[in-house]
Amino acid sequence: MNVLIVYAHPEPRSLNGSLRDLAVRHLTARGHDVRVSDLYAMGWNAVADRGDFLDHDPGARLVYTHASKAAFAGDSQRPEIAAEQQRLRWADAVILQFPMWWFSMPAILKGWVERVFAYGFAYGVGVHEGERWGDRYGEGTLAGRRAMVSVTMGGREPHYGDRGVNGALDDLLFPIHHGILYYPGIEVLPPFAMYQVDRLTPAQWQAAATAFEARLDGLFTDEPIAFRRQNGGHYDARQVLKPGLGAGASGTRIHLIAPGDPDQLPAK
Amino acid sequence: MNVLIVYAHPEPRSLNGSLRDLAVRHLTARGHDVRVSDLYAMGWNAVADRGDFLDHDPGARLVYTHASKAAFAGDSQRPEIAAEQQRLRWADAVILQFPMWWFSMPAILKGWVERVFAYGFAYGVGVHEGERWGDRYGEGTLAGRRAMVSVTMGGREPHYGDRGVNGALDDLLFPIHHGILYYPGIEVLPPFAMYQVDRLTPAQWQAAATAFEARLDGLFTDEPIAFRRQNGGHYDARQVLKPGLGAGASGTRIHLIAPGDPDQLPAK
Repeated sequence: MNVLIVYAHPEPRSLNGSLRDLAVRHLTARGHDVRVSDLYAMGWNAVADRGDFLDHDPGARLVYTHASKAAFAGDSQRPEIAAEQQRLRWADAVILQFPMWWFSMPAILKGWVERVFAYGFAYGVGVHEGERWGDRYGEGTLAGRRAMVSVTMGGREPHYGDRGVNGALDDLLFPIHHGILYYPGIEVLPPFAMYQVDRLTPAQWQAAATAFEARLDGLFTDEPIAFRRQNGGHYDARQVLKPGLGAGASGTRIHLIAPGDPDQLPAK
Repeated sequence: MNVLIVYAHPEPRSLNGSLRDLAVRHLTARGHDVRVSDLYAMGWNAVADRGDFLDHDPGARLVYTHASKAAFAGDSQRPEIAAEQQRLRWADAVILQFPMWWFSMPAILKGWVERVFAYGFAYGVGVHEGERWGDRYGEGTLAGRRAMVSVTMGGREPHYGDRGVNGALDDLLFPIHHGILYYPGIEVLPPFAMYQVDRLTPAQWQAAATAFEARLDGLFTDEPIAFRRQNGGHYDARQVLKPGLGAGASGTRIHLIAPGDPDQLPAK
């Protein structure tokens, strides 16, 4: 299978760099084809702007979504944007490898999403009218693919627990898991998370490497996070969760399928 | 009072630009001093890297937190980083004005946070040992200040409601409200949010402008979001919420003070 690793760390000799190298080595040894988008090494431009669109009139008012739609449809995106879209189409699985900075992905990776996830590619896909608000959240261009976030944190694990002061890791990652990856149709695996990474002993690294390898081995077989599909029948015509679903939960967890929920309608 | 607006939109003639202009005009007319950090116009570098530290050995391994600590303490940060820190110290209130892109702030604004919120300035402040994990979440360098997120969305309001398919706006903004703003001590007001902004009629703009002015008038008097202070006695020594607190809630909402909760200990 084809695996794309999108890697966002400024220092190759970092833990994140080691995890990237381990993933390349391990997946390649298992017979997968692996490509790496090393955003810092590529000098990736993190700032979405009119320069992303080769045919955009420099004096015209920029509406980024409109310009993105026109450039994607007209094949006039900056070549590095189109190239990353090709890599996503090529991939059967995507790994996002990054350090948690201020409770989200590094800006360079966010800017990769903003520029590569074009209108017509990752959003604005499908019919948006009546009861249907597009092919998103479980359907879309990237359906059939899988993704896993591999994230490192300086903080301690209890701080990210369900009652930890930072907020639960699943809540912090919800905008990425659900809002970025699941939106264009990618199934999302539970994250691989490492804590207190500034104090890692060699033994802890060995244990983490073994755990990471196990997760890589499950990339195409592990159960993804059970997000509801937007068009699976659990949301009403306003895209609001129907009464009775999500009972006993609140916050982001109501968007997970629970035991006893009705089956979802088939995907388009 | 002093108000800093951090503004992140590539197009001055955008709705975000209009909201920025309105805020400058309205707050100035009320007698406040207003400064704007217009990140796109400034050509803000969004990518945190070794270049942020003037004295960093280019060949040395980069540990961003360590380098940030040394450069902040040794006054060898890039001048634009130090200048933004000065603006934050100057400000009594901060407004973040941005469009919601992929369920978070634009990369250029995230990169402003990553580079300006230095070690020793916005994190790594106070003693980290025993029961105390620093002066954060309600205490820190920026305590005594207030902030408000003003955010525009292309999507519809029900999609961002408590049961909406995108996730609740409060959950999506939690990493920003709690993780970025409250962390270094800033009190956070409820967000000013606009929806379906691509279809705004003149009448809708007028109504929004009036509502925004009312929020600006309440910048120093409105009740902030009732986040618990880390060192206020509601979290235990592992920074985990004590039993009995957050009852009936889950997800990010457990970090809000609820009626009947014990009083918090005084801030340091």
